[in-house]
Amino acid sequence: MIQDMTYEEIVARISHLLEQEKTNGIQVILEELQPYDIAEIYVMLSEEQRPKFLDVLETEQQASLIEEIDRDEQLELVEQINVNDLGEVLDLMDNDDLAHLLDEVTPDVKEQYLSGMTTEESTAVQKLMEYEAETAGRIMTNRYVWIPEQYTVRETVDKIKIFAEIAESINYIYVINNEKQLMGVVSYRDLILAEMDEKIADIMFSRVISVPVEMDQEEVASIIERYDFLAIPVVEENNVLVGIITVDDIIDVVIQEANEDIEKLSATGKSIDFDTKVWVASYRRLPWLVLLLFVGLISGSIISQFEETLQKVVALSFFMPLISGMTGNTGTQSLAVVVRGIVGQEMNKAVVTRLILREFGVGALIGITCSILLFIIAYVWQGSLVLSFVVSSSLVFTLIIGTLAGTIIPLLLSKLKVDPAIASGPLITTLNDILSLLIYFKIATVFLHHLL
Amino acid sequence: MIQDMTYEEIVARISHLLEQEKTNGIQVILEELQPYDIAEIYVMLSEEQRPKFLDVLETEQQASLIEEIDRDEQLELVEQINVNDLGEVLDLMDNDDLAHLLDEVTPDVKEQYLSGMTTEESTAVQKLMEYEAETAGRIMTNRYVWIPEQYTVRETVDKIKIFAEIAESINYIYVINNEKQLMGVVSYRDLILAEMDEKIADIMFSRVISVPVEMDQEEVASIIERYDFLAIPVVEENNVLVGIITVDDIIDVVIQEANEDIEKLSATGKSIDFDTKVWVASYRRLPWLVLLLFVGLISGSIISQFEETLQKVVALSFFMPLISGMTGNTGTQSLAVVVRGIVGQEMNKAVVTRLILREFGVGALIGITCSILLFIIAYVWQGSLVLSFVVSSSLVFTLIIGTLAGTIIPLLLSKLKVDPAIASGPLITTLNDILSLLIYFKIATVFLHHLL
Repeated sequence: MIQDMTYEEIVARISHLLEQEKTNGIQVILEELQPYDIAEIYVMLSEEQRPKFLDVLETEQQASLIEEIDRDEQLELVEQINVNDLGEVLDLMDNDDLAHLLDEVTPDVKEQYLSGMTTEESTAVQKLMEYEAETAGRIMTNRYVWIPEQYTVRETVDKIKIFAEIAESINYIYVINNEKQLMGVVSYRDLILAEMDEKIADIMFSRVISVPVEMDQEEVASIIERYDFLAIPVVEENNVLVGIITVDDIIDVVIQEANEDIEKLSATGKSIDFDTKVWVASYRRLPWLVLLLFVGLISGSIISQFEETLQKVVALSFFMPLISGMTGNTGTQSLAVVVRGIVGQEMNKAVVTRLILREFGVGALIGITCSILLFIIAYVWQGSLVLSFVVSSSLVFTLIIGTLAGTIIPLLLSKLKVDPAIASGPLITTLNDILSLLIYFKIATVFLHHLL
Repeated sequence: MIQDMTYEEIVARISHLLEQEKTNGIQVILEELQPYDIAEIYVMLSEEQRPKFLDVLETEQQASLIEEIDRDEQLELVEQINVNDLGEVLDLMDNDDLAHLLDEVTPDVKEQYLSGMTTEESTAVQKLMEYEAETAGRIMTNRYVWIPEQYTVRETVDKIKIFAEIAESINYIYVINNEKQLMGVVSYRDLILAEMDEKIADIMFSRVISVPVEMDQEEVASIIERYDFLAIPVVEENNVLVGIITVDDIIDVVIQEANEDIEKLSATGKSIDFDTKVWVASYRRLPWLVLLLFVGLISGSIISQFEETLQKVVALSFFMPLISGMTGNTGTQSLAVVVRGIVGQEMNKAVVTRLILREFGVGALIGITCSILLFIIAYVWQGSLVLSFVVSSSLVFTLIIGTLAGTIIPLLLSKLKVDPAIASGPLITTLNDILSLLIYFKIATVFLHHLL
């Protein structure tokens, strides 16, 4: 019984059957497996057995294998598929996955792949590829069920039976008029509960929530999340239905966007995971670090301008890491709140003002609390009232400024539609570094004669 | 026509109808709205109109209103619902949402709420509350459709018709034996394509992917994401089916876990959003900052131990922010890779060793690159070969150590099953701060006579 076998056992069995050329036995196993499982098994097979295994797969299984496998191995796999079958395989692939694949090949190869496909599918995928990356148009599929307004429940159910196998989602059936405009939606559940002779127009839900093709995928995700939908229709101008986005793609979007936010906050560099090679990971991480190096030099040159002050009161340097560290962190805290909160939130004047005032309040409150604490500790440690005053009053200012920088800069960048990746953690941190050192040494210089 | 109206217009209309006590008109509007929309409209109504609006809602609408509304306002809303209706409303709520609500009230109130409910529903929710937070058992629902093995397609379709309205998902129908053990699954799509007289046992899929009740919700999310399921069955020991988890809850889990990762990396403090009050946000952010203050003092005391060195070569202080800043950031980069990658990945010895070696390689590569750059710049700026050597050789060591600390510490904490929140960004940053200063000043002291 296949259901209790591990991948290793299944691979051993399939490998054995491949050697004996018992392809029927393999299909019996495959029928009990999910596309993801088949992909896992494929990569566990030896290089020699993989092409043989591919031959055993049905066209549809080949299509979903391509979809499931890691991006790096996709092209290699596609090349191993029989050229005569390839068009049919590509026809069966989800358009969004296929668009990704076609993005990676040369124009010649792309042309060759498209030429093997049916006109309908190749037109659809080429249209998809015209939309900007990370928009609704780019992640939608054309595998949905639509019906004309005048259908009855019976006619609808009959149509679903025909399309059940190829539709990506049969949870919602979209109702359109002669101009292909989206007029309503019926859930499968509604159909089950309706009488066969009822008119769709009478049972459909006409306040359909849809998204425009150009909407950012992150916004689409937040709408689906909010409404708990399994799919959402995508419309062009004039409410013309052009596709649907299904919830499984939305989960991928949510993960991708969260990773992007984390990359912004930690300046990790794009998509580094456990399997990324040393060279690639270093190359992706270096740009930020080199930038940091230069910003660190700016901090250094600020300190060097106060060389005299520092030479006279070396104790000032003891508190440098504390002040710049805390200012940097408070900025990152604010940044994280803004970066995560900004999505799906309408950023009108009232919201922005309230947020800035809130963060100002937070900066002041934590600034005052930490300052009092620091004043006491610094006095106990160094025994100088003036030094303690300089250090702790600097901290109040820098924490307020740090909080505001971490709030206002990402808001400003998002308002200016600048790539918010610029507003990443290290930028805020180093900016706050520079500001905090300036404030600290300015205050110290003013009180210098008292410190001596 | 309601479909083209904005929230403001709908609220105005409902408000008007409430004043005229035309409750029928309100229901006509509500029928075209989603639960999320009704919640949005509820909070836009005036305080006086809210109870009246609640009275107009049907029990089911009240239940989903509670589910959709912000946690802070849930309890207030529940208290406004007619006591006689409350049990019925709670019966209709999703168990996972209800469990959350009951977690927030006193034991007395909880008892009172439960007593109004049917035995079946109150038992179910109490059972749910026994599972640990953030596990499969805690986020599952008991609103699924199950059938015995011997059913035919026809019998199954009939059963679905009865349960369609209350089941959370009718995409999959779970097949169980007399011991309630999960034997198979049939998708709704399979039923559509099957003949009415076929036996379920013949068309069902018996290698069911299920999750145990105690599985961490993050792992459940990664399984659903991998397989693109709309729901997944939850089983107790012996494969006994106890519930299902639907994809809409999984999206919430993915968002929640991403936010937790970001909180870890930026030490933001738990759940601060745009609506959090100043006091609350400050209170949540302060603990990390106070901790940072003390760690900053440790850095300070390290510097103070090298006071003599620093007094003799003040220029050493110019490079302090650069070295500690870069070390801190390289550690956060590694941390982000580990924190995001660790989920759903089997962390065996091979994977861990490979990751640590990779990060060592990355640290060495970026360390050497940045050092060469720094050596040149420092020499041009300060004109001292020895100083440039001290600064740049320190950077190689600190970057390697920073990378390794950012990799090994979270791995170790996860291995020791310590709350990984401890391995957050500021911990790594400040630890790297301390290490980098120690290395820097140690090297500087060794070469001190050359620097003078």
